[in-house]
Amino acid sequence: MNLKLRLGILGGGGNSLIGVLHRIAANMHDKYTITGGVFGTDWQKNIDFANKIGVHNNRVYKDFDAFIERELKLPTTERIQVVAILTPNFLHFPMAKKLIENGFHVICEKPMTTTFSEAKILHKLVKDVKTIFAVTYTYTGYPMVRQMREMILNGTIGKVQKVDAQYYQGWINPIIHDKSKRSTTWRLNPDKSGISCCIGDIGTHAFDMLEYVSGLKIEAILADLNYLYKDNKMDIDGTVLLRCTNNVKGVICASQIATGEENSFVVKVYGDKAGLKWEQENPNYLYLMKEGEPLQVLKPGHNYNTELSLNGTKLPPGHPEGIFDAMGNIYNGVAKAINKEPYNKGEFPTIIDGIRGMNFIEKTVSSHEKGNVWVPIETQE
Amino acid sequence: MNLKLRLGILGGGGNSLIGVLHRIAANMHDKYTITGGVFGTDWQKNIDFANKIGVHNNRVYKDFDAFIERELKLPTTERIQVVAILTPNFLHFPMAKKLIENGFHVICEKPMTTTFSEAKILHKLVKDVKTIFAVTYTYTGYPMVRQMREMILNGTIGKVQKVDAQYYQGWINPIIHDKSKRSTTWRLNPDKSGISCCIGDIGTHAFDMLEYVSGLKIEAILADLNYLYKDNKMDIDGTVLLRCTNNVKGVICASQIATGEENSFVVKVYGDKAGLKWEQENPNYLYLMKEGEPLQVLKPGHNYNTELSLNGTKLPPGHPEGIFDAMGNIYNGVAKAINKEPYNKGEFPTIIDGIRGMNFIEKTVSSHEKGNVWVPIETQE
Amino acid sequence: MNLKLRLGILGGGGNSLIGVLHRIAANMHDKYTITGGVFGTDWQKNIDFANKIGVHNNRVYKDFDAFIERELKLPTTERIQVVAILTPNFLHFPMAKKLIENGFHVICEKPMTTTFSEAKILHKLVKDVKTIFAVTYTYTGYPMVRQMREMILNGTIGKVQKVDAQYYQGWINPIIHDKSKRSTTWRLNPDKSGISCCIGDIGTHAFDMLEYVSGLKIEAILADLNYLYKDNKMDIDGTVLLRCTNNVKGVICASQIATGEENSFVVKVYGDKAGLKWEQENPNYLYLMKEGEPLQVLKPGHNYNTELSLNGTKLPPGHPEGIFDAMGNIYNGVAKAINKEPYNKGEFPTIIDGIRGMNFIEKTVSSHEKGNVWVPIETQE
Amino acid sequence: MNLKLRLGILGGGGNSLIGVLHRIAANMHDKYTITGGVFGTDWQKNIDFANKIGVHNNRVYKDFDAFIERELKLPTTERIQVVAILTPNFLHFPMAKKLIENGFHVICEKPMTTTFSEAKILHKLVKDVKTIFAVTYTYTGYPMVRQMREMILNGTIGKVQKVDAQYYQGWINPIIHDKSKRSTTWRLNPDKSGISCCIGDIGTHAFDMLEYVSGLKIEAILADLNYLYKDNKMDIDGTVLLRCTNNVKGVICASQIATGEENSFVVKVYGDKAGLKWEQENPNYLYLMKEGEPLQVLKPGHNYNTELSLNGTKLPPGHPEGIFDAMGNIYNGVAKAINKEPYNKGEFPTIIDGIRGMNFIEKTVSSHEKGNVWVPIETQE
Repeated sequence: MNLKLRLGILGGGGNSLIGVLHRIAANMHDKYTITGGVFGTDWQKNIDFANKIGVHNNRVYKDFDAFIERELKLPTTERIQVVAILTPNFLHFPMAKKLIENGFHVICEKPMTTTFSEAKILHKLVKDVKTIFAVTYTYTGYPMVRQMREMILNGTIGKVQKVDAQYYQGWINPIIHDKSKRSTTWRLNPDKSGISCCIGDIGTHAFDMLEYVSGLKIEAILADLNYLYKDNKMDIDGTVLLRCTNNVKGVICASQIATGEENSFVVKVYGDKAGLKWEQENPNYLYLMKEGEPLQVLKPGHNYNTELSLNGTKLPPGHPEGIFDAMGNIYNGVAKAINKEPYNKGEFPTIIDGIRGMNFIEKTVSSHEKGNVWVPIETQE
Repeated sequence: MNLKLRLGILGGGGNSLIGVLHRIAANMHDKYTITGGVFGTDWQKNIDFANKIGVHNNRVYKDFDAFIERELKLPTTERIQVVAILTPNFLHFPMAKKLIENGFHVICEKPMTTTFSEAKILHKLVKDVKTIFAVTYTYTGYPMVRQMREMILNGTIGKVQKVDAQYYQGWINPIIHDKSKRSTTWRLNPDKSGISCCIGDIGTHAFDMLEYVSGLKIEAILADLNYLYKDNKMDIDGTVLLRCTNNVKGVICASQIATGEENSFVVKVYGDKAGLKWEQENPNYLYLMKEGEPLQVLKPGHNYNTELSLNGTKLPPGHPEGIFDAMGNIYNGVAKAINKEPYNKGEFPTIIDGIRGMNFIEKTVSSHEKGNVWVPIETQE
Repeated sequence: MNLKLRLGILGGGGNSLIGVLHRIAANMHDKYTITGGVFGTDWQKNIDFANKIGVHNNRVYKDFDAFIERELKLPTTERIQVVAILTPNFLHFPMAKKLIENGFHVICEKPMTTTFSEAKILHKLVKDVKTIFAVTYTYTGYPMVRQMREMILNGTIGKVQKVDAQYYQGWINPIIHDKSKRSTTWRLNPDKSGISCCIGDIGTHAFDMLEYVSGLKIEAILADLNYLYKDNKMDIDGTVLLRCTNNVKGVICASQIATGEENSFVVKVYGDKAGLKWEQENPNYLYLMKEGEPLQVLKPGHNYNTELSLNGTKLPPGHPEGIFDAMGNIYNGVAKAINKEPYNKGEFPTIIDGIRGMNFIEKTVSSHEKGNVWVPIETQE
Repeated sequence: MNLKLRLGILGGGGNSLIGVLHRIAANMHDKYTITGGVFGTDWQKNIDFANKIGVHNNRVYKDFDAFIERELKLPTTERIQVVAILTPNFLHFPMAKKLIENGFHVICEKPMTTTFSEAKILHKLVKDVKTIFAVTYTYTGYPMVRQMREMILNGTIGKVQKVDAQYYQGWINPIIHDKSKRSTTWRLNPDKSGISCCIGDIGTHAFDMLEYVSGLKIEAILADLNYLYKDNKMDIDGTVLLRCTNNVKGVICASQIATGEENSFVVKVYGDKAGLKWEQENPNYLYLMKEGEPLQVLKPGHNYNTELSLNGTKLPPGHPEGIFDAMGNIYNGVAKAINKEPYNKGEFPTIIDGIRGMNFIEKTVSSHEKGNVWVPIETQE
């Protein structure tokens, strides 16, 4: 019974979608027991929800401080080992900071913090304390994204010469054109969401994904953001020109006013030998375009898949897995890291992904405000 | 802590794929606790596996008889309530029979039994004892299959006039052409698999699916099976002409020698107002073809979805769920039934689906052996 | 100026769609001059149409007899060399017969005749007279259909073990349910259309296509036809089980009541090494499914294409050609044959395709009427 | 016989692909007779080619000057009325100029000229002389592109709020990495191709298309071009940020080093009610994304199509037409204009499209060279 990691959860109670995603992911590989947490601010709802998901009353806490205080008093053989932070964004930083300082491993939802300076503090702390710290850029958990990464790193497409990510959603459209809605939505309130809406929410996914699959670093950006209305304080659309290592150029197009789009995230990387393309809404297909050869469509679970990709597939070819499985793969990787088992560097996004994402968000807004000029992204290590 | 159902599992240990599928499905909606079971015939592996998935030693049993004997001695507040049967096919019947007789609810993998006569015995028993009995025709759990069913029942496509299911796989190809392989594979051994390979394994899915989505009953069939080699005892391909209620005609095409196909299961139903099409390998799309109107592609999680379909979706549109989620939906429905909560008749396949499937398999082989003639499928209620 | 063949056209005037198709096809490769013909029964409309498409008044004839009489009086250097028959079906036979007897080459729309016995007469005549006789099963002209044929003949998929064609349309749906419409539509009138509607019109395409791409001959069939209403005299849907050479089994599914379908013709051939799939509505993609390898999508115009396929592509990859181009390729092949240039046997369907199609139609109806029994297709050579 | 327009062709002989495209397009609607031209610089090849395509010797000219001189001497009832210019780019301007000055109508391949200043001269001339002048941005001839335009103009997607065009090809990849190839390819030689390769060749298509379908004008751009090698003088990839009328923002991504891509041109326009998407490689599908409704896929030839779209479809739904048909539609529109028949403004691109394209090319290079800054596109009328 000791093989499973004791997982604490902060937030994610009630009808929280992100809560469902993390719970299913945590259970998927039989490596975590959801042991305790704070699932909401209302005590009775907190307890009821905990019971519903099978958490004992004595490990339900009224707030984060109580969580820390009481768990630290438990013997290490019983104490929660890793904590998933699913709260509103502005709480990520103080919670993560205190958890790391007290030796907990952390699985943190993105964006990791609300500012780059907070991210830098966490980064330093993790380097010092050496806990495991994962940031859930969920899409990197898909088997065919992992396949794409490893094929590029293995040279299948040759030297990368162009990167392109397009992340189009339409959900803000019915909000943005209604003055009362746009002034009251928390996603468009800088106090609650940080300085960017579209880039902060989905542009960062594109940024992280391009670096993840290409192995390149994005070194400078020029951004053009779109607010649609003067009284709207947050970007809801933007295009970002990219300069990467090796002088590779690229582009990120992101929008939340691409009316009618659901969650259309498309990633393309072209090398001097071939190109690769992946689409989030059909995540089990990876398109390999080799010059003068038939288009190849790679799918999960085959002998031709890379090891990292195969690790993320549980059923035989033709049995489509989905986004829960992508998050499950990330949880699986984090478990390996905590258990000091061997694991592949690509199994979960780390504090580096988190801090680079925050840097990207701030620089994007800065580039736009300065009149669409080039600004550098800092190196992290 | 009492809200979760106590689930026992028979089989599914080690690297069993079906075991992974059922465990994830059981955990998905926070409604089951995997409480005990028999996970294999080797005692140490049985125990080790149980520990790995978080089952206490004192609920791991050395065999099915021990399981029954010991669980019955536990107070009903602790006793396992529902049992998933994931063993080889020939064990389904004796296990299911004994479980029903002793008041357990059952979730049984398909095919429910190895013969129609066994199926009839179970059917009678379930009607008498009134336990919940589900047969896991997994694909009926997909949200867009449920949407298809409800749209047809609600009259969206008018009066059904043609049904068509095609289920093509290629996995037997490398086995069937190798004499030593085809003589040793259990799937091609009638003693282990029953009287049919292709129709028994995938043809039944097509049969069940057509009845599930169309609301029709298949009343007679004419089958042409294919064995490829004279020394091969089992069909590995077959086409079945259909006569349904209301004189609707149709066809089921099934193959395991459709080389290169993975798990290509496509279902089409045409009415006098419109047609509907669904494909298992892209399960989140449902195609509505209305005469003289643009093709419509329905997806999960929208306000336009039917209630049964929406129940099966956990995330917002554009976040693809997969086959684990389909099975999770079936487990969710079974839990509602056991808990005597209201549920939709379409939430899980029942003993009727199981017995009709067995009838279909035997009649298909019979039609073929008699020289491709029409044979009736019996009515069940 | 003598390089172009002098083409006569019978029918296809006014708003005739088939007329447009043949004219564009004839012009496409600069090998035909539309020199004369009979474009309709109304003399003024006939003349006006001829002028519109650039035919001189003195080569417009009031009827077929005048056409023959006058053209035969012209010197062979001016006489029309090849005639396209685009008239209603029942005229195909008498026109084709007289044309062949008088030494004209013929391009005949399908179905070639209205009965198998007529077809046999034409077949004998062509063998005797040795004119070029093409039957326009247009779909065999698509570059990727030709690619499919040659890949199969070259052994890419190994020994063929399963053939499958599905041809679904929905256009008869609004007619069939309206008693007055179904009793007045010529397509449902045996006197005008022959003995079969669905099989005669589209089932034959499937029959011809399977033989064309697989290199097999269909030797026996068992058919189940569907009429929907008792007062309806013609099949509007049917499924046909197939026995081919080498004991290969297969199926043809055809329907004109697949409501909402446009012209969905899908052809699949599986061998013991791989499978191939082609869809008429997306004609520039050919799917190669090799066991354990990524799906390959072949497109036209590449170095990897076969010679016959490349002959049918005029522009670089990525510039989609369509159905006019398919018919153009057939016309191009016929021109080569008439000009005694070398050509590939697969460049156009011949009298053999025409006669086999007629045999198939009669045998399908016969199988159905006898109670869905096996009937042989005769060999032609 | 006088109903057809007398068409002259300059260039396009031998194996010219563009020649095939224009000839087929010209013949498609029975509105043009290819009457004369200059098909190459070698006299014998010129004559042989003319004969092959059915042009009389006495209308084949040794060069452009002879063409003009001799045709002007013919009576207007015999003289060529409209001339297609298919020569290398640098000849477009002098030929077009002289043709307009002498009263010929002109169909000119794109890019219309090699410089913006040349384009301005032609523009002025056309306004003065009032001949018909078409520039063959072929893709605007596709029925579903026309459908997209009219749906947007009719308000189907509401107020446009985002435009996006991506045009990716890979054909320059094998050239650009080979020093000797990249220094000898005419497409990378500014003396022969003008100042831009990628933007000049395909970026202009994207520019014209966005204006065509959206009804907006692009008023300013910021471009980042990519040359890959220092000794390479021409852009082979570029991203262009857009400002359109009504403060609409957008982006054009173009590349010829998107290795493995064929001719992937994708256009998306989002309004405040819905979005529309079209892809050149599958030109018969138009995707309508309405918030909270099923995705709609519109196809050609239906009653729901707009008039302009229906004019471009010759066969019933499900019979795919292609790029020849798109060009044929443009030729059809030009014929209507010359014949002074009523026609829709969207039937063919005009001198305005030509001049705006040239302006765009020059401004794109200018923006890049100035350090990726905003530059205005001038208004034309």
